[in-house]
Amino acid sequence: MKIGPLLLLLCGLLVPATLTAQQTTLTVPSQHNLMPVPASIQFGTGRLSITSAFQVATKSYSDARLRAALNRMMKRLSDRTGITFTPVIKNDESQATLVIDCAGPGRTIPAVDEDETYQLDVSDHQARLTAPTVVGALRGLETFLQLISADHDGFLLPAVTIRDQPRFRWRGLLIDVARHYQPIEGLKRNLDAMAAVKLNVFHWHLTENQGFRIESRKFPKLHQMGSDGLYYTQEQAREIVAYAAERGIRVVPEFDMPGHSTAWLVGYPELASLPGPYEIERHAGIFDPTLDPTRDEVYKFLDTFIGEMAALFPDAYLHIGGDENEGKQWDRNPQIQAFMKEKGLKDNHALQAYFNQRLLKILQKHKKKMIGWDEILQPDLPRDVVIQSWRGPTALAEAARKGYDGILSNGYYIDLMYPASQHYLADPIPANSTLTPEEAKHILGGEATMWGEYVSPETIDSRIWPRTAAIAERLWSRPDVTDIDDMYRRLAAVNIELEELGLTHERNRQVLLRRLAQTKDIGPLETLVSLVEPVKEYRRGQQRPSTMLSPLTGLVDAAHADSDTARQFSNMVEALLSDAPHFRTEEVQRALRGWRDAGPQLNSILERAPALHEARPLVDDLSEMARIGLEATSYLTDTVAPTTQWRDASLARLEQTAKPKAAVEFAIVPSMRLLVIAAAELPSLQQLSPADWKLRVKSLAKPPAK
Amino acid sequence: MKIGPLLLLLCGLLVPATLTAQQTTLTVPSQHNLMPVPASIQFGTGRLSITSAFQVATKSYSDARLRAALNRMMKRLSDRTGITFTPVIKNDESQATLVIDCAGPGRTIPAVDEDETYQLDVSDHQARLTAPTVVGALRGLETFLQLISADHDGFLLPAVTIRDQPRFRWRGLLIDVARHYQPIEGLKRNLDAMAAVKLNVFHWHLTENQGFRIESRKFPKLHQMGSDGLYYTQEQAREIVAYAAERGIRVVPEFDMPGHSTAWLVGYPELASLPGPYEIERHAGIFDPTLDPTRDEVYKFLDTFIGEMAALFPDAYLHIGGDENEGKQWDRNPQIQAFMKEKGLKDNHALQAYFNQRLLKILQKHKKKMIGWDEILQPDLPRDVVIQSWRGPTALAEAARKGYDGILSNGYYIDLMYPASQHYLADPIPANSTLTPEEAKHILGGEATMWGEYVSPETIDSRIWPRTAAIAERLWSRPDVTDIDDMYRRLAAVNIELEELGLTHERNRQVLLRRLAQTKDIGPLETLVSLVEPVKEYRRGQQRPSTMLSPLTGLVDAAHADSDTARQFSNMVEALLSDAPHFRTEEVQRALRGWRDAGPQLNSILERAPALHEARPLVDDLSEMARIGLEATSYLTDTVAPTTQWRDASLARLEQTAKPKAAVEFAIVPSMRLLVIAAAELPSLQQLSPADWKLRVKSLAKPPAK
Repeated sequence: MKIGPLLLLLCGLLVPATLTAQQTTLTVPSQHNLMPVPASIQFGTGRLSITSAFQVATKSYSDARLRAALNRMMKRLSDRTGITFTPVIKNDESQATLVIDCAGPGRTIPAVDEDETYQLDVSDHQARLTAPTVVGALRGLETFLQLISADHDGFLLPAVTIRDQPRFRWRGLLIDVARHYQPIEGLKRNLDAMAAVKLNVFHWHLTENQGFRIESRKFPKLHQMGSDGLYYTQEQAREIVAYAAERGIRVVPEFDMPGHSTAWLVGYPELASLPGPYEIERHAGIFDPTLDPTRDEVYKFLDTFIGEMAALFPDAYLHIGGDENEGKQWDRNPQIQAFMKEKGLKDNHALQAYFNQRLLKILQKHKKKMIGWDEILQPDLPRDVVIQSWRGPTALAEAARKGYDGILSNGYYIDLMYPASQHYLADPIPANSTLTPEEAKHILGGEATMWGEYVSPETIDSRIWPRTAAIAERLWSRPDVTDIDDMYRRLAAVNIELEELGLTHERNRQVLLRRLAQTKDIGPLETLVSLVEPVKEYRRGQQRPSTMLSPLTGLVDAAHADSDTARQFSNMVEALLSDAPHFRTEEVQRALRGWRDAGPQLNSILERAPALHEARPLVDDLSEMARIGLEATSYLTDTVAPTTQWRDASLARLEQTAKPKAAVEFAIVPSMRLLVIAAAELPSLQQLSPADWKLRVKSLAKPPAK
Repeated sequence: MKIGPLLLLLCGLLVPATLTAQQTTLTVPSQHNLMPVPASIQFGTGRLSITSAFQVATKSYSDARLRAALNRMMKRLSDRTGITFTPVIKNDESQATLVIDCAGPGRTIPAVDEDETYQLDVSDHQARLTAPTVVGALRGLETFLQLISADHDGFLLPAVTIRDQPRFRWRGLLIDVARHYQPIEGLKRNLDAMAAVKLNVFHWHLTENQGFRIESRKFPKLHQMGSDGLYYTQEQAREIVAYAAERGIRVVPEFDMPGHSTAWLVGYPELASLPGPYEIERHAGIFDPTLDPTRDEVYKFLDTFIGEMAALFPDAYLHIGGDENEGKQWDRNPQIQAFMKEKGLKDNHALQAYFNQRLLKILQKHKKKMIGWDEILQPDLPRDVVIQSWRGPTALAEAARKGYDGILSNGYYIDLMYPASQHYLADPIPANSTLTPEEAKHILGGEATMWGEYVSPETIDSRIWPRTAAIAERLWSRPDVTDIDDMYRRLAAVNIELEELGLTHERNRQVLLRRLAQTKDIGPLETLVSLVEPVKEYRRGQQRPSTMLSPLTGLVDAAHADSDTARQFSNMVEALLSDAPHFRTEEVQRALRGWRDAGPQLNSILERAPALHEARPLVDDLSEMARIGLEATSYLTDTVAPTTQWRDASLARLEQTAKPKAAVEFAIVPSMRLLVIAAAELPSLQQLSPADWKLRVKSLAKPPAK
């Protein structure tokens, strides 16, 4: 399911962080790095040291899943601390550093009603993790690892009592493996990362116009002809399901229909609404090929196929997609038109509702509950169907009022390349929601969606992480946990924890840059890429046309959605201006000089690297921004006002730098603009008291109209 | 097979590079980045541009293996250049940029007598790759990719004619997956890397005291009880064999016996020479447990086991280890002593020879040729057994004179952490060899050996690469290709090519440092680690005791065997001194100031990072070295001679810095020493003419006696 820019605007995703940040309050103690923030946390006094004497004991219930999780935890603890532990899990709790008191196994197949509660009590001699289920214990183990810190004397946990449970029970990540295939080791890494931030649903988007990625033994031409040989065997699918279950994660497979189905039709054109032949789609977009909802053979096919998949995927839910079908093929097929007339189906929506009703019966036959995108919500849809909303919390609330369970994905479209702060404030039940508590129970949670148009095995981790950890917090923690600065502070710690798990989001950036530059000396290139972000929404495809066969190895692929450097620079500039009229410019100038000096070095790299030629205007922009910024800070330090010409020329040049090039855009432009305006306003500012300065600076900080 | 420090000394691996470098001559044009250097290379004039019109055509023979290799090649080319290609392989060569003219499939199972010859002709309108076999074509495709360079106008290949074939036909890499398990995706990455530098044998060291890593369906307790659950299924083994074959690489499995077999005996103690029970060994070293060579049941077991493995691994050879059995269990078993007396076996060597003879019959029954380490070479050993020599070229030559085929591993023990330059000069047939051409044919080649005591999935790539590329060149290229500077220059290019293939040797260093420091700001730590190397030979275990259960996440694990920075600094210092009496010290001083400034920053990182506390003395050493170096360069620039006290105190302090700490050692100490001596010798040097200066500097450059 993809959403258009217009809808995004309507749904408020574009509200700038600078505005919403003012509404946030500091609700969590800043001394811990926990993400998601637990429901209740009470720090005590004292510390529990982590030494080579560290031991784990289980009390009450224990099983293979719990023991495997404990072994993984000890391995991570050992890798992080450098301490060799005795990897034996004892039953005697007297000597144990960590005692796991687990009441029972919980659900054998991970389920939406699983109890994920846990309590963690750390004193100066022991940590005790209590949970009603193994999954609760797994969640608590992640908290245990996040609690570890260090001081002069070594590694430790602070004394603390944590009582925790999730706000929402459906906390998911969709990975689209259809547009670009992702090897299973990449999926496993991401399941590990999901578990680390307590996500519990892997939504596996397996079929698309661009690829059919799951082996079907009943209809082998589906994967054989629809995947370029890049598909998961059934054994691999079982491996992923088991790997996820070990981590308390459900796997919800999606077979998108009746649209988004070109890849099905390559092998089975007889399912289509118009005659074939069909080829695997190589472009991004919405396409016409659609299953024919009027023929019994199609339902017979789907019955067999769904039956096969239902046996492969044990989750109670099966996702049928159902999105973005415009029915163009239906309009052009007289037989389908006749069918609609005969059945009294007044439009394509009605025909799709008819399709969904028949599909629902097939799912029910195979003991699966249906989940689908917004569009499937049509009159007469049974109440046990779950709606996944790309439209937004309002659409979701409407469905809830009608009695439908739903999950939110609007606001969590991580492929749109918005910063974590934006996703962080999207809430499945916003503060202004008018749902009754009973109605609100229908809002099961949400899912981040990693659509795959521009995602390779090399870049996928950096597209998902660390931003998805902020979404995970939104879905787990209390609704008033909304402090953006504190979120970013904790995200930096989680980021390193994610690397421990094998995630490649940080390490692969340099690999991309070294390949682009064909040298190990990429320092200046790192400077450049740290200041830019990929263009937002769906502009990449316009700016830098490509197909599914294009390499994903450009500068834009090395750029991350959330420029840490730009955020830090923005803080520096705000601090500089808030401190007026002192103008302590050293730090800002040091940064600007670094960017200025990078220019000539970058040009010399680009000279020898044709794959970086598209970055030439960016290098010019960077040099110009550094020049303008240094001039502005000179005016501020010297308290000499610049001319109007300087101001206008500088702002005009900055407008140029604000324009995306090579499908990336500088994230520092607003800060640069602020420096220029502050310098230009010096005479008027100088008349003000320090207090008025601050107010004035705040008004300057508002983003200029574009 | 492990070798002791004394033997290493005897075999000449310790000859310092500075001495042997003088013997080398520049024999290859410096304008290309090919590694290994082809047998014959003739540059023409003109260039072949790589554009989006790039097309591949096959002529004559083509098959699935060749087409898969072409698709992989095009993917790499596309990723590197950023250009979208049409991934269609044509039959019509008229429009093709690259034509593959392959005569036939070659051997269906990769074999030691495979013809790997190829010819590559690049003109300004077409490249043409001609080969008698698919494997020859695969080798040529790697050369094609390495030829790609860039200029102002884009990517290109220079016009060239290359005729190439390997000097040796057995060019291997041993990976010990027994001491530490390595997941199959890591093995696949390394197979890709091997293919990139034209290695053709993956020697899979599958069993050890510390682990039995292959599933046996006949004797499941082998892997079930001997592996901690970390083993390869037979399906995975087949997957690796197929993956290797696709790349023209043989897979030779090793089942080490009768020693190195503790892990076998955990499940089957009845095979041992003394009663059990046995446990998986957790330490590094040589251990006593040994198969009992006197009992028929043992041979019956081996017959069944070898039969099972012979079916799994199609290669003609099967490696039986045979090394480092001291027979201590035999000495203590009266029944075995009685057996020896009865059979007239005068010592344990004779008993092992008896074992090998019976084992050989089992291998022959299952149609496998035997290969084993030096020790198996005993009187009466049939001539078709291959000797793998850890003892050295002399032992190998002796075996060759007796008519045995052999491969060299002495000199290629990459686990000893010597720089590439050392391995590079080890030759299976040294220049002073007295073998006749007929005898020399018995020297099949060599193998780099990645023993697994200190190798994790996270670090293995950095332990193997890029150094093994230099060994690959030794085994492929002409014996007179020995220019070390040129090797390092080309190695830098290969290094980036290896990253393209997914190798993690560079990217994981920062991951290790970020985990150690628990922060993203690791610049100063990178400076430190770039200047140190892990201690050589087997000193790590002495300096930093650990077991197979210890984490491999310390500073030593982030350090690489070959400090590029130290090598560059050494060149800078030599240039500085060679240019006397000008003493252009700027570059050297800049480096020294960087190291000086890193000191306080490092201390502040270490303060918060208990896992780095062991690095504290290194930080002190670095600061002191920077201070001494800056003082020395001041004396040189000012042409003021220091006092004798300064000289003595400085050299004494440098002696301290030369001592390993945290199992790493500074690679810059010799250069620092040189600076001090040069400064101290200023008065005598000033008496000399520039020409005499150079001579004097050369004598100063000799490493001081320890």
